[in-house]
Amino acid sequence: MMSLTLMAICSGTFAQNINRMELGDYERVKDRKVYHLPEIPGFVTLTADLHMHTVFSDGVVWPDFRVQEAWVEGLDVIALTDHIEVLPHKENIKGDHNTSVESASRVAEMLNIILIKGTEITHGMPPGHFNALFIKDANLLDNDDPMEQIKEAAAQGGFIFWNHPGWASQQPDTTLWWDAHTTLLEKGWLHGVEVANQHDWYPVALDWCKGKKLTVIANSDVHEPVNSTYDLSVPGSHRPMTLVFAKDRTAEGVKEALFSRRTLGFSGTQIMGSEELIHQVFYASVEVRESYYALERGGRKTLFREVVNPTDLTFILEKDGEGQMDQRIELHPHSIAVIRHGEGVELRYRLENCWSGSSEHPLVILK
Amino acid sequence: MMSLTLMAICSGTFAQNINRMELGDYERVKDRKVYHLPEIPGFVTLTADLHMHTVFSDGVVWPDFRVQEAWVEGLDVIALTDHIEVLPHKENIKGDHNTSVESASRVAEMLNIILIKGTEITHGMPPGHFNALFIKDANLLDNDDPMEQIKEAAAQGGFIFWNHPGWASQQPDTTLWWDAHTTLLEKGWLHGVEVANQHDWYPVALDWCKGKKLTVIANSDVHEPVNSTYDLSVPGSHRPMTLVFAKDRTAEGVKEALFSRRTLGFSGTQIMGSEELIHQVFYASVEVRESYYALERGGRKTLFREVVNPTDLTFILEKDGEGQMDQRIELHPHSIAVIRHGEGVELRYRLENCWSGSSEHPLVILK
Amino acid sequence: MMSLTLMAICSGTFAQNINRMELGDYERVKDRKVYHLPEIPGFVTLTADLHMHTVFSDGVVWPDFRVQEAWVEGLDVIALTDHIEVLPHKENIKGDHNTSVESASRVAEMLNIILIKGTEITHGMPPGHFNALFIKDANLLDNDDPMEQIKEAAAQGGFIFWNHPGWASQQPDTTLWWDAHTTLLEKGWLHGVEVANQHDWYPVALDWCKGKKLTVIANSDVHEPVNSTYDLSVPGSHRPMTLVFAKDRTAEGVKEALFSRRTLGFSGTQIMGSEELIHQVFYASVEVRESYYALERGGRKTLFREVVNPTDLTFILEKDGEGQMDQRIELHPHSIAVIRHGEGVELRYRLENCWSGSSEHPLVILK
Amino acid sequence: MMSLTLMAICSGTFAQNINRMELGDYERVKDRKVYHLPEIPGFVTLTADLHMHTVFSDGVVWPDFRVQEAWVEGLDVIALTDHIEVLPHKENIKGDHNTSVESASRVAEMLNIILIKGTEITHGMPPGHFNALFIKDANLLDNDDPMEQIKEAAAQGGFIFWNHPGWASQQPDTTLWWDAHTTLLEKGWLHGVEVANQHDWYPVALDWCKGKKLTVIANSDVHEPVNSTYDLSVPGSHRPMTLVFAKDRTAEGVKEALFSRRTLGFSGTQIMGSEELIHQVFYASVEVRESYYALERGGRKTLFREVVNPTDLTFILEKDGEGQMDQRIELHPHSIAVIRHGEGVELRYRLENCWSGSSEHPLVILK
Repeated sequence: MMSLTLMAICSGTFAQNINRMELGDYERVKDRKVYHLPEIPGFVTLTADLHMHTVFSDGVVWPDFRVQEAWVEGLDVIALTDHIEVLPHKENIKGDHNTSVESASRVAEMLNIILIKGTEITHGMPPGHFNALFIKDANLLDNDDPMEQIKEAAAQGGFIFWNHPGWASQQPDTTLWWDAHTTLLEKGWLHGVEVANQHDWYPVALDWCKGKKLTVIANSDVHEPVNSTYDLSVPGSHRPMTLVFAKDRTAEGVKEALFSRRTLGFSGTQIMGSEELIHQVFYASVEVRESYYALERGGRKTLFREVVNPTDLTFILEKDGEGQMDQRIELHPHSIAVIRHGEGVELRYRLENCWSGSSEHPLVILK
Repeated sequence: MMSLTLMAICSGTFAQNINRMELGDYERVKDRKVYHLPEIPGFVTLTADLHMHTVFSDGVVWPDFRVQEAWVEGLDVIALTDHIEVLPHKENIKGDHNTSVESASRVAEMLNIILIKGTEITHGMPPGHFNALFIKDANLLDNDDPMEQIKEAAAQGGFIFWNHPGWASQQPDTTLWWDAHTTLLEKGWLHGVEVANQHDWYPVALDWCKGKKLTVIANSDVHEPVNSTYDLSVPGSHRPMTLVFAKDRTAEGVKEALFSRRTLGFSGTQIMGSEELIHQVFYASVEVRESYYALERGGRKTLFREVVNPTDLTFILEKDGEGQMDQRIELHPHSIAVIRHGEGVELRYRLENCWSGSSEHPLVILK
Repeated sequence: MMSLTLMAICSGTFAQNINRMELGDYERVKDRKVYHLPEIPGFVTLTADLHMHTVFSDGVVWPDFRVQEAWVEGLDVIALTDHIEVLPHKENIKGDHNTSVESASRVAEMLNIILIKGTEITHGMPPGHFNALFIKDANLLDNDDPMEQIKEAAAQGGFIFWNHPGWASQQPDTTLWWDAHTTLLEKGWLHGVEVANQHDWYPVALDWCKGKKLTVIANSDVHEPVNSTYDLSVPGSHRPMTLVFAKDRTAEGVKEALFSRRTLGFSGTQIMGSEELIHQVFYASVEVRESYYALERGGRKTLFREVVNPTDLTFILEKDGEGQMDQRIELHPHSIAVIRHGEGVELRYRLENCWSGSSEHPLVILK
Repeated sequence: MMSLTLMAICSGTFAQNINRMELGDYERVKDRKVYHLPEIPGFVTLTADLHMHTVFSDGVVWPDFRVQEAWVEGLDVIALTDHIEVLPHKENIKGDHNTSVESASRVAEMLNIILIKGTEITHGMPPGHFNALFIKDANLLDNDDPMEQIKEAAAQGGFIFWNHPGWASQQPDTTLWWDAHTTLLEKGWLHGVEVANQHDWYPVALDWCKGKKLTVIANSDVHEPVNSTYDLSVPGSHRPMTLVFAKDRTAEGVKEALFSRRTLGFSGTQIMGSEELIHQVFYASVEVRESYYALERGGRKTLFREVVNPTDLTFILEKDGEGQMDQRIELHPHSIAVIRHGEGVELRYRLENCWSGSSEHPLVILK
């Protein structure tokens, strides 16, 4: 058959006949996932992956497939960020540094995905790799000097972040901040840092974001199909992403939110960002119901309380307060926990999977 | 180890040490599922399974395990309905016809599950099998004459329904209504019918409900652990259940709703009940977004529209209206479909998986 | 990070440190699957997909990714068969009709996958689409006349088969054989037919194979990543494939087997091909154990017998013989069924999911 | 419907009709799993769970359900070991200490499961909990003195093992051997130890087995349905079990093997037991193919070698030898790894997931 390229969404089906039977056993269902995420007042919550590759640099898929997989996975925003410098397919690929994004724009429009023009500036350490988003012409960044490249990106109004600062190939011992990054910061050319990239996350980078007022970013940096890097059949699974709290669901809204640092990193079951945003997200996610008395096994009357998490987020709570209460509560996505507690006890817990610094977990009270 | 009987909900964990390591690879996570179901004005939507067995008749599990599995699966309401007449374990079981429910009540209270006292009256056809719910003393139903039994159940204020009317062992050819059922109906002793039981459903029974003002009921009739009869690892899977639209989440609320016929059957991906309730449920479930123009493959500009189903229900839509629109839309749970349509077209569809009669599917308009 | 392009097989892992933590929750494990398939005397059983696309025609993945996904899925043989005529990416792709296969050869050698040079000749009906395998130079087939193209393929020693003969876009009413195909057959330029392609299968094509001595072929014709077209997380799932019974595991062995018609189609749970091969495969797959007496429920003594299927194939048996025996036996992959039967009964069954003609199912005896 | 108690294996199915439709969406398929396990010369490999509970002590399922779930999971041998002392259901259960096993024997015979009569002797520490298998009359063990009970079990020819020696409730600090156990050992009344129980394993217990010539045992100690304690939908999942290398597949064969210490523990992906048995199992499981040269990415020619694991076991290999070879190889069940190595290098690895002592991992050579 000829390629559908864009999967046939909602297509009418041909009738079968005796000489053409359908074998649907293992057919992949292609729906867009609905994300259940909390909203915080004044903003919409957008799911964004701001770092990925296509055949136009060292990825293995055609650009519009990136839109299609994002659609299936329920993302709102993607940036295609093919390398300026790493072009292993160049012998067989025609086009310039803008081609990748341009060729995906029709499908993005059709599927209502916000597609951001980006590119990756790729150097040894220092200064390492950087993504520039919302640029106008990536070809103007094709230049040997990283500082010139970044300057040009900034001149185009780009949002620039440092990629995978703890990548073992570039920072084998530990995750260090270099003088070059101070320079970039001082020039106003550095706006964010990836605290999580693919399967890694870099706790110290969260401290940098806090101390230097940089935006928290988490991305997949995927080169293969996403479902080849992540096993998306695992319940609750997802690629690493940045949660963006935007004024509206537009590219402009995303840009404003990124420059305003209204983001959280979300990788695996971990959530990274400011204490304030984590608090807002937690309290907007979790419903704590009225306590009630019932007999425990053994016959002792105890207070029980349901804690409801109807979102796609996970919250792991460890007891932080005084008094009788359960030690650990795992609020998996779309689940309810029943907890036990003593009378008059303040249910104070530490969010073990949420990070407001390299060793800081926000506290919450279940009331 | 000694039995936990009631699974350890939210328990503190012992620290490991070098001589006691945990192997968590295949450990079952025990959370209560959050159901995402639409609410209709004035009512809460409760998930109920009103027919199941324990070791006290011909089931294979202890009563309080029925509460625990219902808790995990996210049910609000269960009725234990052990047979009066079928007691294969009686040589090794002590207790009367009330013991089963009574022994499960402590765990039900602790886990906030509404536990309804019931029993199954079990005879050949006619009249077949009946469940009596909300009875006060099942022992008073231990009697050879089905009419006497049902009369007693009614005298106790019971809600009585005919079980699996199309069970092949009792109705091998087709699903028939007998004179005995007319008698029961006329005496006011028959209030509902199972339109779905375990893996079967009986379309004609839905016509009876409509014509004779009987309540639509769907149940698992489970004898084994639920997860041995249904594969609950399949995404979206669930046992057959009755959706109850109750004034409040109490046993009294459930009783009032059952007698008032505010229920739908929900088995597999099928939904059965009155057109009015299905309409309310559909429109409370599905969000239809603004249409937008985009280029199709091939370059034609077309109207696209997102249809969002954030619930655990499935809706299969087949085109019923005139004009250009997609032929078939499958709205799986927690999914978004993008549909194409012509300008000014009324998007009228037939809900193929929703039944308001043995051959009636409600119509809906996507606007 | 830079692309791995070829997934890091068996790589050493970097140690984590406090500032680089791994989040392995949803990481895709990349192993090659072991296929459990029966061997028949004198031959090795090879799993082959002989029809697929890359970005060099209308697919969305780079050629060496096709090798990698085949490796993971446990295939032995793939043919890359990009279209001569359908080149939607040509504006951005450089290379000729041989580039696709050539660029994948290094990875194929490393992963020990047999990579066959192929191409797809693509025309309206008649004659439709054809794959030519084992050709030497696809560029010589770039020609407007299908007969000339096929002639050239044959001259290069190619194995030529008709693709998806019942494709609804080309044969909307039913699956017909045209005069053009008779011509090809008479000239010796047609060697096989796809009886299954993607999610479809064409029963009548199996009759053609039998009557006209054509090789039975089944393929995925995949354009996207395989895991986007098939849900490979379903236990037992696989893309459509041709089982090749070859003298050895080499490209030459595959070619000899194809020209000798020693193949079966395997799509979904269906198996298509000659009665003789199906018999050989069934008896080499299934172990029938000694019968034994035991009490049935109810207390009647009956003969029981275990039937063991340790393979990745499915066999669905329907009673064909006389006497007391179970009506239907479903031998799923890696499963054992216990069947009941009368004394002295010949256990003759029809293989419902195996097809030796459009309406012929081989018979087997369980002894 | 009435209970099937024993699931309907291989039953004929009733035809559907317009008024009885089947909804098979989530129906649990009930097949017996085929285990792919290596055989070692002279023995059959049996899968055994020798510790579990029913409603006759503190379990929640009827005894014959234990046989049915074992059948589905592919076990060959189970022992029902209800407590003598812990009888929370006794108010509602009739029967003596033999009833549990006796009531399951018919189904065991029908399904060809080896059912071993056992019981659990249940005391505080010391001496803790013990299972006695192959006893003749459990009622004679109903006695307050653990020493008298164990003596009686030994007098009946029982095989006696210490259960969960590191259970946190009885050994909160670490896993200790007490004088009482020395006494039992000296009297010849102690034959084995559970090195793994439910989700725990106790490395030091493996040293005891080695030093004191005790049999290595691993069990589920399950009280709920197995699928409620373990998530059996996870690929490769299984309850903890003892692999028994028996002269034949009979109860006598199992008994002889247990007394002869021909067992391995198998819990999660870990394997515990003697170095000799682990070596035999590894080399009977894994096929190492001929090395071949191919180009790595970057263009260097390297030796590659396929290592094939067609079993249900996992082997994790860490480099132990000198020279160039991959650092870590994960041989998941039914998978093939491709490894790289230097010329003339001996591929010596340590089996990280196999334990021949609390800190000993057998070494293997891939040749």
